[in-house]
Amino acid sequence: MHTLADTRTWRHSRISITTRQATQFADLTGQVDALVADAGLRTGLVHVQSLHTTTAIVVNEHEPLLLADFAALLEAIAPLDAPYRHDDMSVRTVNLAPGERSNGHAHCRAVLLGSSVSLNVAEGRLQLGRWQRLLLVELDGPRAREVSVLLFGEGTR
Amino acid sequence: MHTLADTRTWRHSRISITTRQATQFADLTGQVDALVADAGLRTGLVHVQSLHTTTAIVVNEHEPLLLADFAALLEAIAPLDAPYRHDDMSVRTVNLAPGERSNGHAHCRAVLLGSSVSLNVAEGRLQLGRWQRLLLVELDGPRAREVSVLLFGEGTR
Amino acid sequence: MHTLADTRTWRHSRISITTRQATQFADLTGQVDALVADAGLRTGLVHVQSLHTTTAIVVNEHEPLLLADFAALLEAIAPLDAPYRHDDMSVRTVNLAPGERSNGHAHCRAVLLGSSVSLNVAEGRLQLGRWQRLLLVELDGPRAREVSVLLFGEGTR
Repeated sequence: MHTLADTRTWRHSRISITTRQATQFADLTGQVDALVADAGLRTGLVHVQSLHTTTAIVVNEHEPLLLADFAALLEAIAPLDAPYRHDDMSVRTVNLAPGERSNGHAHCRAVLLGSSVSLNVAEGRLQLGRWQRLLLVELDGPRAREVSVLLFGEGTR
Repeated sequence: MHTLADTRTWRHSRISITTRQATQFADLTGQVDALVADAGLRTGLVHVQSLHTTTAIVVNEHEPLLLADFAALLEAIAPLDAPYRHDDMSVRTVNLAPGERSNGHAHCRAVLLGSSVSLNVAEGRLQLGRWQRLLLVELDGPRAREVSVLLFGEGTR
Repeated sequence: MHTLADTRTWRHSRISITTRQATQFADLTGQVDALVADAGLRTGLVHVQSLHTTTAIVVNEHEPLLLADFAALLEAIAPLDAPYRHDDMSVRTVNLAPGERSNGHAHCRAVLLGSSVSLNVAEGRLQLGRWQRLLLVELDGPRAREVSVLLFGEGTR
């Protein structure tokens, strides 16, 4: 067991990213790794949370053909061209904003994938298996996106 | 980086809710916001965990037509009327309780959505994007439900 | 509210498991319970993270017929015999390893279920509802698997 010295760390950061495609998998692993190193975190947790309702955060392999399989899976589960009540502006009255997009499919995909991921930190390193990468999943791009990152645990400075 | 003063907070609470429909999205954002304010939490994490196997906790937009889309998505993925082995009382022998419900569909939906969500807290506020709300998803209601909430981080009192 | 005494705990462990079937639900509840007790954790969080991209961690009921329903659900969503680009070795060039398996279906299932779960600890006990169990979901077994477990919070020793 590790007993805390006087080096507890609680650090909140933001990562900004501009996506370029309607569906895109953006690898955040390097940026989160750098935040862990910069904070001097030894043992702790990182919680990476998207601030949007048409994106997701997942951990899986970053292999381009697999990402195409994921996109096909999402299209099969919640097709872009299916009818969504959320997109029927003839009846909708709630949360209407200028430039409202037709994006019911993106919300449906996002709710299945989940909006945030926690990762363990041990011996100063993000705990990730050989093929694991942290991916922001854009489901209604291209757009400017914000990710909230909280790091906490025992630090070395 | 924030160094902890003598104001670390670890607080556990329960939220009780009685749902009224078979499928229902209950917005917990206000109650969790109030717990964060009451704890005086400045920088930290909140983990909201349902204590049931036929509910889920998700973050997405609270727009009534979208919630109907989510219900339709769940019905397409795991239909209420499909056969589930879990509901075949002619063969089942495990975890049988009085008043056992036919709810295989609800378990299947719950396992895809996930039973808990973490949210970051920074500058004294729950980090949520413009459209993000924290929702308990009832999948086998109406029922009385319990949610476990853990808050921790740096506080101000 | 609990104020921290001098007993903050941050403990990282690994759980090793060898699965025996292609699809298997391995109950980790007892092992994680033992880690909580051994750390003397009173109020805190446990984060259980699989280190693989073809497994998942979920919380649901451990009832054998229900687990068969979950397996059938996953087979319906991402069939074993469907074509996956990830498995097309005539075009794939990235992340190729000796003994590469045909496992696109397993990645697709894993990304929907999620790779980790957090659980609250209060009054010295893992917060789990009556039917809730912590399950590692093997999706491409049999294999040797590693799970990273971080416990933190207020301890008693």
